Amino acid sequence: MPERVSANGSLEELGRRSVAASRLVALASTSQKNLALSRAAELLLERQGDVLAANRADVARAESAGAGATVIDRLRLGEARLESMCDGLRTVASLPDPVGEVVEGYVRPNGLRVERLRVPLGVVGIIYENRPNVTADAAALCLKAGNSALLRGSSGAIQSNKAVAAALRDGAVSAGLPGDAVLLVEDTRHETAEQFVQLRGTIDCLIPRGGKALIDMILERATVPFVLDGDGNCHVYVDVAADLDMAERIIVNAKTQRPSVCNAMESLVVHSAVAGSFLPRIAARLHSAGVALVGDDRARSLAPEIGVATADDFAREYLDLKASVAVVDDLDGAIDHITCYGSGHSEAIVTADLLAAERFVREVDAAAVLVNASTRFVDGGELGLGAEVGISTQKLHARGPMGLRALTSVKYVVHGQGQVRQ
Amino acid sequence: MPERVSANGSLEELGRRSVAASRLVALASTSQKNLALSRAAELLLERQGDVLAANRADVARAESAGAGATVIDRLRLGEARLESMCDGLRTVASLPDPVGEVVEGYVRPNGLRVERLRVPLGVVGIIYENRPNVTADAAALCLKAGNSALLRGSSGAIQSNKAVAAALRDGAVSAGLPGDAVLLVEDTRHETAEQFVQLRGTIDCLIPRGGKALIDMILERATVPFVLDGDGNCHVYVDVAADLDMAERIIVNAKTQRPSVCNAMESLVVHSAVAGSFLPRIAARLHSAGVALVGDDRARSLAPEIGVATADDFAREYLDLKASVAVVDDLDGAIDHITCYGSGHSEAIVTADLLAAERFVREVDAAAVLVNASTRFVDGGELGLGAEVGISTQKLHARGPMGLRALTSVKYVVHGQGQVRQ
Repeated sequence: MPERVSANGSLEELGRRSVAASRLVALASTSQKNLALSRAAELLLERQGDVLAANRADVARAESAGAGATVIDRLRLGEARLESMCDGLRTVASLPDPVGEVVEGYVRPNGLRVERLRVPLGVVGIIYENRPNVTADAAALCLKAGNSALLRGSSGAIQSNKAVAAALRDGAVSAGLPGDAVLLVEDTRHETAEQFVQLRGTIDCLIPRGGKALIDMILERATVPFVLDGDGNCHVYVDVAADLDMAERIIVNAKTQRPSVCNAMESLVVHSAVAGSFLPRIAARLHSAGVALVGDDRARSLAPEIGVATADDFAREYLDLKASVAVVDDLDGAIDHITCYGSGHSEAIVTADLLAAERFVREVDAAAVLVNASTRFVDGGELGLGAEVGISTQKLHARGPMGLRALTSVKYVVHGQGQVRQ
Repeated sequence: MPERVSANGSLEELGRRSVAASRLVALASTSQKNLALSRAAELLLERQGDVLAANRADVARAESAGAGATVIDRLRLGEARLESMCDGLRTVASLPDPVGEVVEGYVRPNGLRVERLRVPLGVVGIIYENRPNVTADAAALCLKAGNSALLRGSSGAIQSNKAVAAALRDGAVSAGLPGDAVLLVEDTRHETAEQFVQLRGTIDCLIPRGGKALIDMILERATVPFVLDGDGNCHVYVDVAADLDMAERIIVNAKTQRPSVCNAMESLVVHSAVAGSFLPRIAARLHSAGVALVGDDRARSLAPEIGVATADDFAREYLDLKASVAVVDDLDGAIDHITCYGSGHSEAIVTADLLAAERFVREVDAAAVLVNASTRFVDGGELGLGAEVGISTQKLHARGPMGLRALTSVKYVVHGQGQVRQ
């Protein structure tokens, strides 16, 4: 029976163990990795009592520290959430293995055979806040992509994280992989987080899962390479040639179906030629769905439900039943508004005009651009990636929903027959 | 007649101009971009007298400041180098345009059509040392990939850089593109370099072209995303199953054909079973080619030309007619040695043993792994990329020689018919 609790040591020592494990995980077969994940799911269910007890201890501590309802909700596990965590592990096991994919291959005039091969990154560092499900989700994706996961969760979820990480470690061991393929840093002091993001030479890729304070700390301190999962100030633009019924369905869905997530609509932009007929209707509809609206003068003159917006409001990611509204004269105005206030996440146009759609797709600079569809589709599952480790709003390495491929690199392999350079 | 000299202002102002230009360059047609590059080549030749005079002024300043021969050589332009700079511009014009490539496309079960489209990065910042050819090479690649180039060269090459950048700006203007597509920061103070790497929100990708001091400054200070072009401590491993004549040709080529570049061999690793016959021969051959060798005890016992190596010597990038030599017991020993001392650039094996080659390819973690070929082939031109902006030794975004694609990002484009999320 392998140890349940990851022994812990200095950050440097944990880093060395993670690197050593990564060398073995990189060479593991797909079957081995899948077995590790399905065994981890079984172990989590077998140990359900212990895992939930550990989580209750974290929740009790948070409650007695006066944490808010949102924090408690993110932290709390129950049977249903544990089951869904296990489903997540099995889903990742069922996804195609990205490692070994030949991304490109060709022969040079001198006979050299060149291939670009998809390979693991090595050690993926995940730094995250009080969400124990990230421990399982992120570790599973790292492992499936042939990496070891070096996890640094927060103090508030430490007991839950230890219990979940132990199941993943034991799953790895039972599949013949090193337990250190999943390694939780149990030292949750703030200074350890800063040291964590400076483990250059150990962490090949850092993925933060958290809010602005965490991102700012990383921009300030990190020396390891990272991929940022940034804000989503997502717009829906209703063009003059929009089907207004479709626009209403898309807007209501994008704003209200799950307002707390990054791909929810935060800003509505309406062409002035349809604003007179459309804005009163959509404002009333959103108002009745509990959405508070603020807008510019033209928008407010058309719908009494719309309050006064400041420039800050147009740039805000509300993550709530709130939205800003702007009226623009034409497509150029819409693109300018989005360029000025958008966060480069997901931007949608509703239109039946092919040229307007083409210009919007070409000229709006964002991770995802949608034509006649809800911004809520910008998600790893919805776009067919199977699972996601986050949604990148940066332009390097990965952009948009990040699935298994975002957790890999590529290596040139050159086969010769003795060629030398002239 | 457009202005020859780029007007200059504060870094923030230059950044804003570069961003504004990037929006237009991103939408430029391939023909426009190609015209801009071929016009720039024509202008450089038309202005040859002025460009070379500007360069002579830089060289004179460097000489009176007592700069070494290498620095002067890198700085100096002549008719041949200017011609080769122009050839480079025409080569980039002849390459396929990466922008607009559909990287992937599929339809989801709900009818959403998803495409991943290759798009420009936006503003690419290049920070570099005294090599005026980088001004033309890097700017051309940025422009062809639909980006604006924000260039920060060093004070030592400022007159040359201004003259070269002016030709590129004027070439852009004569093709109907903004001159600011190529913008040289003329303020060459050290503190400006630090501000440059902190232009977050302006520079979408920073590519440094320089030595360790520059890289360290970037790791310490940069807040913009960057791609590092790191050291190359490249190994050639001679396996027990190597064709020793082939091994000799490859080693001599990899070490001596151009010792000053990052893909030259710096370390030789030999299987003990062939070391007795091979090491005396290759050591004599390298010695006669002027190569100074240092090695471990086993290597030294076999060849009198080999001096004593310290552990530091095995990790060193000599960039000179020097190399380290190690004898290992088997393939595992070779892989361990490379894992311990390599810099993740280019690693070669010489062997006729298929299984040894497969293990080497799989287990050596480097940007490029070569079987029976010289490490000198790890170069954008040799691998068919047409031109390169550097060789990345990092694992995120781009790894190995970076061509035009490394200067692009990818955008999700989702076409629906009114779909909303359930």
